[in-house]
Formats: sequence, structure tokens, C-alpha cells
Amino acid sequence: MVLKMTEIAIVGGSGYTGGELIRILEKHPHVDIKYITSRKYADVPIEKVHPNIRDLNLIFQDLNPKELDVDVVFTATPHGASMKIVPEILETGAKVIDLSGDYRFKDMATYEKWYGMDHIAPLKAVYGLPEIYREDIKKADLVANPGCFPTGAILATLPLSKEKLVDNVIIDSKTGISGGGVTPAENFHFPNCSDNVIPYNLTSHRHMPEIQQELGLYSKIKVSFTPHLVPVIRGILTTSHSFLNIYDSSDIESKKEYLLNLYKKQYKNEPFVKVLENGEIPTLNAVRGSNFGHIGGFEIDENGRLVIISAIDNLVKGASGQAIHNMNLICGFKENEALESYGMRP
Amino acid sequence: MVLKMTEIAIVGGSGYTGGELIRILEKHPHVDIKYITSRKYADVPIEKVHPNIRDLNLIFQDLNPKELDVDVVFTATPHGASMKIVPEILETGAKVIDLSGDYRFKDMATYEKWYGMDHIAPLKAVYGLPEIYREDIKKADLVANPGCFPTGAILATLPLSKEKLVDNVIIDSKTGISGGGVTPAENFHFPNCSDNVIPYNLTSHRHMPEIQQELGLYSKIKVSFTPHLVPVIRGILTTSHSFLNIYDSSDIESKKEYLLNLYKKQYKNEPFVKVLENGEIPTLNAVRGSNFGHIGGFEIDENGRLVIISAIDNLVKGASGQAIHNMNLICGFKENEALESYGMRP
Amino acid sequence: MVLKMTEIAIVGGSGYTGGELIRILEKHPHVDIKYITSRKYADVPIEKVHPNIRDLNLIFQDLNPKELDVDVVFTATPHGASMKIVPEILETGAKVIDLSGDYRFKDMATYEKWYGMDHIAPLKAVYGLPEIYREDIKKADLVANPGCFPTGAILATLPLSKEKLVDNVIIDSKTGISGGGVTPAENFHFPNCSDNVIPYNLTSHRHMPEIQQELGLYSKIKVSFTPHLVPVIRGILTTSHSFLNIYDSSDIESKKEYLLNLYKKQYKNEPFVKVLENGEIPTLNAVRGSNFGHIGGFEIDENGRLVIISAIDNLVKGASGQAIHNMNLICGFKENEALESYGMRP
Amino acid sequence: MVLKMTEIAIVGGSGYTGGELIRILEKHPHVDIKYITSRKYADVPIEKVHPNIRDLNLIFQDLNPKELDVDVVFTATPHGASMKIVPEILETGAKVIDLSGDYRFKDMATYEKWYGMDHIAPLKAVYGLPEIYREDIKKADLVANPGCFPTGAILATLPLSKEKLVDNVIIDSKTGISGGGVTPAENFHFPNCSDNVIPYNLTSHRHMPEIQQELGLYSKIKVSFTPHLVPVIRGILTTSHSFLNIYDSSDIESKKEYLLNLYKKQYKNEPFVKVLENGEIPTLNAVRGSNFGHIGGFEIDENGRLVIISAIDNLVKGASGQAIHNMNLICGFKENEALESYGMRP
Repeated sequence: MVLKMTEIAIVGGSGYTGGELIRILEKHPHVDIKYITSRKYADVPIEKVHPNIRDLNLIFQDLNPKELDVDVVFTATPHGASMKIVPEILETGAKVIDLSGDYRFKDMATYEKWYGMDHIAPLKAVYGLPEIYREDIKKADLVANPGCFPTGAILATLPLSKEKLVDNVIIDSKTGISGGGVTPAENFHFPNCSDNVIPYNLTSHRHMPEIQQELGLYSKIKVSFTPHLVPVIRGILTTSHSFLNIYDSSDIESKKEYLLNLYKKQYKNEPFVKVLENGEIPTLNAVRGSNFGHIGGFEIDENGRLVIISAIDNLVKGASGQAIHNMNLICGFKENEALESYGMRP
Repeated sequence: MVLKMTEIAIVGGSGYTGGELIRILEKHPHVDIKYITSRKYADVPIEKVHPNIRDLNLIFQDLNPKELDVDVVFTATPHGASMKIVPEILETGAKVIDLSGDYRFKDMATYEKWYGMDHIAPLKAVYGLPEIYREDIKKADLVANPGCFPTGAILATLPLSKEKLVDNVIIDSKTGISGGGVTPAENFHFPNCSDNVIPYNLTSHRHMPEIQQELGLYSKIKVSFTPHLVPVIRGILTTSHSFLNIYDSSDIESKKEYLLNLYKKQYKNEPFVKVLENGEIPTLNAVRGSNFGHIGGFEIDENGRLVIISAIDNLVKGASGQAIHNMNLICGFKENEALESYGMRP
Repeated sequence: MVLKMTEIAIVGGSGYTGGELIRILEKHPHVDIKYITSRKYADVPIEKVHPNIRDLNLIFQDLNPKELDVDVVFTATPHGASMKIVPEILETGAKVIDLSGDYRFKDMATYEKWYGMDHIAPLKAVYGLPEIYREDIKKADLVANPGCFPTGAILATLPLSKEKLVDNVIIDSKTGISGGGVTPAENFHFPNCSDNVIPYNLTSHRHMPEIQQELGLYSKIKVSFTPHLVPVIRGILTTSHSFLNIYDSSDIESKKEYLLNLYKKQYKNEPFVKVLENGEIPTLNAVRGSNFGHIGGFEIDENGRLVIISAIDNLVKGASGQAIHNMNLICGFKENEALESYGMRP
Repeated sequence: MVLKMTEIAIVGGSGYTGGELIRILEKHPHVDIKYITSRKYADVPIEKVHPNIRDLNLIFQDLNPKELDVDVVFTATPHGASMKIVPEILETGAKVIDLSGDYRFKDMATYEKWYGMDHIAPLKAVYGLPEIYREDIKKADLVANPGCFPTGAILATLPLSKEKLVDNVIIDSKTGISGGGVTPAENFHFPNCSDNVIPYNLTSHRHMPEIQQELGLYSKIKVSFTPHLVPVIRGILTTSHSFLNIYDSSDIESKKEYLLNLYKKQYKNEPFVKVLENGEIPTLNAVRGSNFGHIGGFEIDENGRLVIISAIDNLVKGASGQAIHNMNLICGFKENEALESYGMRP
């Protein structure tokens, strides 16, 4: 019996998430990459743009969305661009996994406020965080792949909201520079960002309402968020600070154990979330290049403040790997197919 | 008229703070470095250890504290070691500026709890943060030079405590690796800490009680502190998160202005503290190698959380530069003598 | 039919090459890791040392070489240590792939001169560079895995020696810090080696005679070698400079084409060597984490100097990946089994 | 007696060399910065562009060259732009120190070949390497400040050419990314160049003929040059490889001593060149931020290849510091005024 391969297309394949989709999908036994599109690099062999990927005989094409006669399309396009093509792609019958922010919001007003533009094509989409929406994703036509910061932040704090343990949470995130994309810019210019830390959008990053939307489903938790650029290529290290409602200074050790068990239970069956014990603290290089998220910390200080840390690779679990996880769910493949690789350390 | 030069000694001169003391003092017109001590490098010319500093004809010596017949001694020794030699040095009549943690605490029980050892020689010392204790420092025999994290954290939050604007403050600090000192160790090994972020001592860093001691003088503010190693050589970027007691969502802009003016007033006459305006956010490379501290941010989100950022060079404003500032105050020199250099950017 | 899995042991598994062996072998469909030994970490679960590798339920053991009842043993031990255990392991009937320098030299006097010690157990071994010794490796009991610098240098210059095109070659190599191993040391301490370049062993590195041994088989070429530490985690970028015997200023373009074709022919059937064309120059991030070696350049200046560049990952093609390549050859597996992954860029 | 301050202007002050000119000149006791020009940032306060430099009350102006009524003008403009304004500035009576390549070549044909444009305003200029042209610089109206690579390369090899010790020299240089300037570009984008080494212009860099011009004055030496980008902010580490004409394998030690003494003699009275002895090898962080150049190595291998290493800060000794050195010579100031600072290590 010959199994039919699933055909896929990558729209906007010249950026970092495009490169990662190819790098990972190339290992996938049930998938054929049929098209990689790029207007800028039309007719250019992909190794000219992604020199790590060689001998695949793939060439960037400048295709019309309607021409994509494939089973699954990854739209690795900027917000604003995705909404222009996703409806047309869906009409071809393909499933779409969109890596932009265009379909992540349930409330269009929130989108329009934070993204500063009208949404010209609202559609029903599933928020593609498998740890919350696994069953919905399996049935979805359109998956909105989560933002990189929200992936790390939600995983780090979901049980706190579910159990109503805190009223506020402060998310202090440190991101690698690849989160800013492939286009050179002042903050990503090596002499400016190397040997430096650059806080930005201190209270105004558009990933905040995305985190708020998901955590707010379970409680009245209020999310505060501040991102920082650190001189790292890949990875988001999220430090979650919150004051426990249940705090009692006489009882820190049992509270820590309660929290650890709560997280272990939450993520018990998750293939890509590892809850670290015994004082082990997540770091970026343990997940570099992998689809794993590490969660740890569970320390409480004398003021009742709880610290939980998560570490993900922003380009994998925070983007392309998670998108492929979503594809595996949609297509009924083994959930971790092509995603089993461990992090690259050192 | 020939002015007598002030003679100084550096005890424990082979580390990074020792090197920085020499690098900066060498520019000082009123100071002669008479001794640099090191047991490990006795009789070795300093350029073998500090290859940036050449032709000064200084040699490390293994001297007894009692032999230091100088005007001012910098003890760049580890905690536990300083307390063993400071009393003897004071007996010689020299002023002492101690860079360890041994003399920073008013309450010996706090010291002993957090540093895990008995204090064998408690003495009256002035906490050497000139922005708070300038007049006391001028008259001091023994100055306890502040810790690197506390310097950045206290400068970022002092007005909040003075004005009783917040009940709690969360200090999330990102430090360069040189803060760990000159001795190679696993967390400072390039393949481990490069391209990585390493949170540590999530709720148990001994700089927390130091920050608490100073901020707690003005209000009942409670300090929570978490440090992170980032792949940066020098610098501490401190992100202070706190919820404003005075918050009122209708009035964010005027609160921001009030806070900015409060900080500008606090630091108006300070030669080394710059309050940034107009949305300018502090970054490490603007202060690299300098004794300046930059403070900025003053953003408030919809939950009433205030973000204030400070940036210092941990080896200069956070250690050797501040020590020399203290020396200038003690000796009656121009306050910024030898410390005027701007940061090195890029 | 159930295929018997090949059982392997890793001796000295706590270092970077040990971690890489596990990371890669874990993907191998025909191999079971039966033992990982470490004296220092005996009884410690491997994720305490290699936090990227989780849930494999492997524990470091302090085993006697004679107890290793497996099919293949990787000795990731330092030079001097390997020679003490390899004979005993061979007696168990296992094949041995040794990652140290102990068995790389045909001439014991050369070994003893450059490694500064007597060789207590000389044995016949095959030099494990598959691009030269593929057929011998298949039949070998003991493979001496090549040094990291020699791997990059020999691949970059082999055709020059074979065709007697040059009399001398100058190898100027830039290595990532992981090449120095897992043990913290002054030159690998982040504040010392970050934002720095450190040349070392300018004319006295022990990888020079290894390169000379292999290139010297084909001609009287003389090898000069100088390594530099650059602030990179992984990778060796080798710049080979040589003056062409066949140089004629009227004819540079045809010489470049001749050289490119010579290299393409040499490596035509090699699964892991890619010869780059059209002015593409090798860089480290295109091979990071992969077993590929990229070779390019082929530029000739007006003085007849030829520049050829090679890029490898020192821990993979320069160590553990090449060792697994050797295992695949010895065991008759598909040559690139577990080694197909592309480099991780960015 | 009141000394008249020397007034200076910086044309094109928004780049890295402009920032460094300000940072250093600000310490100069005899100089007033009267104008800083920038078309792009006209009317912007300099701290918006150079956030390390504060409270100088300098504002970028878009001025016509003829309006620069000052004593000395630094033209920190790109090649091609300098030649358009330098003649006009000279007409105002100001001395000009040009940091571009426009006036470095004695032979216009060489300029036009390597810079790919006609030279519209050839003028007599002095090549501003004080270690060769000190006396000419003192009398010059127009100084062509040397390129960054040539500064490091010429200092490392000058005595070899003067003494006719070698026929060829291969210059393998490793440069920090700031050498590429302030404008973001693909090769300087952090995710591309961090954790990477990027060789470029393998045989075609326009600094090669500049090195050749100067070394060729003393002998028939032929210069081969290859630059590499390394993930460093500042600094050029130059490795010079050459085969000694005078080599004799029986006599390596005396040859090394001869060479060391030759270099010590050459640079004996130079305030900014340090010849390192006793096996000390230059590294970038020993000169970071300083105007010093370190030279060392002097190792000879069994093939008669000599290795000499030089380290400079490309923005200081390789650009702005050297320009100020030239200004000090022109104006009769103390030669090292404002340039005494040691390198910043770590």
C-alpha cells in the first residue's frame, strides 16, 4: 500500500519562520513541500536565502493564493498581509495555519485597537495552542498560530488562572533577536544589540492582549507585560511574577509543592511541555532548536510573590514548530512527528 | 606650591573591580596608587593580569594590612575576607572603602542570615550610595560600597518609597556575566551562558535584603527581587514593576508626568544620575564603562502597573566607579574627578 | 522479523561530545544506548548534566571498561585516558571509536613529541575521516576519530595536495569556544572571551602534525597552522591560504574553474561535504548543529594566492557526528542515518 | 593668560566614528566642538543618536561646508562624499582630517580601480599614520586618515618590509561588526552574524591596495589580504603570516629574538604602539575603547613561517582616535592629549 503524501505550501517562505518550517518539515515522513512562495525571491533557489538547506531543489515562486492546490498551507506572512490571502486559500479547500496575528483575536475591536488597522476579513479560527485547544485544532480549517511571547507566557501561568490563585500577573520576557524577523533594523544591528539589553514597548506590546484573552477565560486575572531584547539569537525566557492569594508565610514549602503538582498534572500528557523539578531552572539553551517548552521555578518569597520561569525557542515552539504540531493534529499524524529533536546545547 | 598626592592602596587587586580601580584611578590627577596587593599574584607585574593596563610599573604585592601606610584603602576582597582586615587597616589611620558585603548591613542578624556566617568584626560604616548618604560619606572612616544590583535597584525606586506610592516592588534584573567575578565557573563558561539567559536565586539573592534595608527607611515597601544572567560582559538592566497606590485609569498621562518630575527633582543635582525623558528607554551600552546611571520608562499600564528601568555598568557605577566617587567625597576632591567619561557605545 | 538493535556505550559521557552523541543517537532507529559512563557523575541522571535531553531514563555509571558488553563503544575521554582503556574494551569484542588524539598518529614518535607523553598502548587504528578512509573504516575494530581542526583543514585542502598544486599551505582557523571542552577556564570565561578574539598556540598546536600526516600522504606539502578562539559557541571556520604552483596572472578565471571542478569531483559522492559555487562563501551558521561541511571560496589574487574556506560544526562533523558516521560505516547502516539534519540558521 | 580654544567641526557626525570623535574630544582640554553636521538628523540633539553622550547641548546641523568657520574639520563622510566637500572646506582655511578612503591613494588610477568611481577632486594629502608620517602630518593641510584594516596590518608588518625579510605577506584579519558602520544590513543583522564567522571579499577588499601602497615603499613585498566578520562589536585582530627569507631551522630562537628587537626598536618612541614580550599575545579586549595598538607573536614554525599578531580598536586607533592623534600633531598639542585611556577589559 502506498500512502499518499500530504502536500503543503509555505507562503512567505524567505523569513526565519519560513526557513524553520522547511528545516523541520524536511524530516517529516508524510509531507511533501510542494510550493514555497516569495515575491522578493521569485525564481531564486532556496539555498541562496537559507544556506543551511541544500539539495532540496526547491525554488521560490511568486504564486497567486488560488494556485495553491495543496492540502495544508502555512502563511508565514506579516499581519495585515495574511488577512488578504487566507480567505482565498481556504476557498481552494486547503487547511490554513496562519503564523501572523491576524486571526488570534476573538474580539475584532481588540485586534483593531492593538494592531492599528481594520480587519478586512474576519473569520472563525482556532487559537493554535495545542495545550489548550487540541481537540478544536483537529477539526479546524483555520488555525491562528500563537504569538511567541504568548506561547511562553500562557504555558507559564495557565494553571494560576485556572485555579484563581492570583489576581495579577507580571510577565517580564527576554527575547532573542530573531523574534524581530529577518529584516535588518537599528535595534537588531549587531553593534547596537550585542552586549546590551533593550527594553521596549514597556506597557504597549500587542502580545499583551493576546495573553490576556487566553488567561482571562478562566478568571479575572489581569496581565501586565514587558518585553526585553537580549543578545541571544533564539529563545524567549519568561519570568512570571505574581502575588499568591493563598499565601501564608508559615507554609511556603507546602505551597511550592502544591504548585509543582498542579503544573505537573496540567501538563502530564503534553508531549512538548516539561515541568522541571528539584530546583532545576529553565534556560534557553536546553530548548534551543527544539519544540519543547520547559517550565520551572515555583519559588515563593516572604512577600508571597511567586516566580515561575518558562523557556521556549521562539522560532520553533513559539512559531514554526508549533505550526507543524498543529498540522500534525489537523492531519491525524503522530503528534510529535518531525518534532522529537532535543534542544541543542551547548 | 606642590600639592601632596593622596596615596592609595588596592587590596585584592587582581579581580575585575581591581582592574577597574586602576584603569580609572590612573586618570586621577590627585592620586597615587602606592600598593596593589594580591596573594595569588605576588611579585607579578599587573599587565600580566590586566593586559589593558601597561607601563605603570606596578607589581602585585602580598602585604600585611598593617603595612599599608596610605591615605585611602580600597578593599576589593570577598565578603568574609574584608571583615578580617578592615579593622587593622583602620588602625593605621587610613580611610577604608570596602567593596564587599561585609559592612553594608545595619542589622548584624540580617547579615548573618543572608551571608551564612558570623560577623567577627562589626563596625560603624556608612552605606556608600552618594545619592543618599553624600554628607555622611564625606565624614566617614569606613564606607561600605553598595552591591551592584542594589545600586541599580535603589536608584530606580527610591522616590517611590519616599513618596509612599507603592506597597510592593518587583525588581527583575538582568546582569552581565562580569558580575560573577573573575573566577571561571560553569554558569560563566562561554558555551553555557552565551546565547542563553540563566535566572538564578529566584527568591534568595543576598542583594534583596540590602535593597530592602535602604528602601524600607522611607516606607513599608516590600521588595521582591529576581536576577538573571544575560550574555553581556558588563551592565545591569533593572526593570522595576510596581502597582501604584495612586492609580486612576482616567489619569495615566498626568501620573506619568508627575512621576517623571518626581525623579527629575530627586536627581537634579546628581552628577551621575540621568533621568531620561520623551520615551527614551535606558540601555546598557549607553552607560558601558561609565559611572553614569540612566533611569527612564515611567510607563503605566491599564492595570496600574508602573515600569521604571535603570541601567548601570556593574563594574563602574555598581562597584569601582562608585568607590572612587566615595573617595572623591572623603578626600574633598571634585566629585566627578576621573569619572567624567561617557559610556562606550557601540 | 525483529531486528536486533545495536547496543552502544559512551565512555566519558558528561562532556559536550558525550551530550552530542546522545542527542544524535537518540534519533537513530537501530541503536540502543546501553551505558553512559562518568566517574564524576556516577548515579546522576543525565538530564542533570545535559538538561536538553530529558525522559531517556539514562543514568551515568562508573563502570570498568571490561563490563561494557556492547557492540560499539565511543570513548569520549581525554588523550592519555583513552590509551588506558581502549585495549581492554577491544578485548570484550566491541568495536571502538575513540574521540581522543591517542590513536590518530601512524608514527608514535610524532605522538609522543606533540602530546608530551609516552604512548603506553599503541595499536593499529584507522583514521576515521570517511572522505579518505571509508573502506578501511568499514572493516576496522578501532577508529581514531579525527581532531576538529584537522577535519576542517583536511577537507579544505585535500585536492591541493593530491594534485600537487601547492608547496605550502597556511591554515588560519577560527574556532568556537566549545572546542575547549566543558571545563571552565580563563580563556573560556565569558567576560574574557566574549567580544574578543584570542589567538593561541601560534605555531605549536598539536593538530598541526595531524593535518600534516594526512596531507603529506599525497605530496611534499608543508602545513602551517594557527588557531584563534572567536566568541562563537560551535563551529570552526578554516581559511586556507596557499600560493599556487600553477599560477599565471593571465588566466585566473580558468584556474578558479579548474579548482572548483576538482573539488566537486573529489566530493561528488560524499553525503556530508557540500562544495559551494557561484561565489557563495561558507559560514558557520549554515552548518550549526549538523554533520555537513561546506567548502567554498576558490578565489585567487594577483599574487597567485588561493583562498579556500571550510565551515564545520566542531562538535558534530568535528567530533560526535563524524563518530556516528564511522559507526554507521562499521555497522553497515545507511551512511547518513541520524545525521541528515540540516544546520540551524539563524 | 587665556588660551584660545581650537574650534572644530565634525561633518557627518551621526555614525559610529562621529560618536567616537565626540566621546574622545569631549575630554580634550584645548578643543571646542563648534559644529556637528548631519543632513538626516538636522536639528536633532545628539543624545537622540548617541545616547551615551548627554548634556553637551550639541545639535546636529545641516550646514554648507563653506560655513564651517573653524580651525579643524573632521570629515566622517563616506568615500565619494568626502571628495565633494573637502576642497571647499580647505578654502575656508581649516585643516581637514578626512576619515574616508578618498585621499589615501598616491595613485589616482589605483583609487579609481578599487573604489569604482572617478576621483573628481584629487589633492595632495598626507597619509595619516603617525608612526610613519609624523613630521609630514604636522605640516599638512589635508590628512587622509588610514583605513581600519590597513592600520592594524601596516603596524604588524612594517619592519618586515623595511628590512626586506619577506617577499609575500598574508594578512588574515578578523573585524568587529562596527567596522561596517551604523547602517543595518544583512551581514550585520544580529541573528545572522552572532555565533558566526563571515569571510568576505576574499581577494578583493579595497583596503588591500592601501596596505600594499604603504608596505611597498620599502621593498617589493606583495600583500595578500582576506577579512572576516567575527561577532565582536569593536576591534580588528590581524594575523600576519609570512615566510622568512632569512629562515634557518637551526636558529629559530635567535631569529625570534632578532625580530622582537627589530619591532621594539621600530616602535620605541611611539606613544600608542605596544610591543608585547614573553609570549604575550595581543587580544582585542586589552585595547577596546583605547587608541593603543598591541603587537606580539613573533613565533616561527618549522616551515619558516612567521606569525605576527596586532590588535586595535577599529573605531579608535583604526578611525577616530587616530584622527584625533593627527589633530594633536597638526595643532601642536601634546601628542596623546585626550587619548591616554587604557582599554576596557573585561
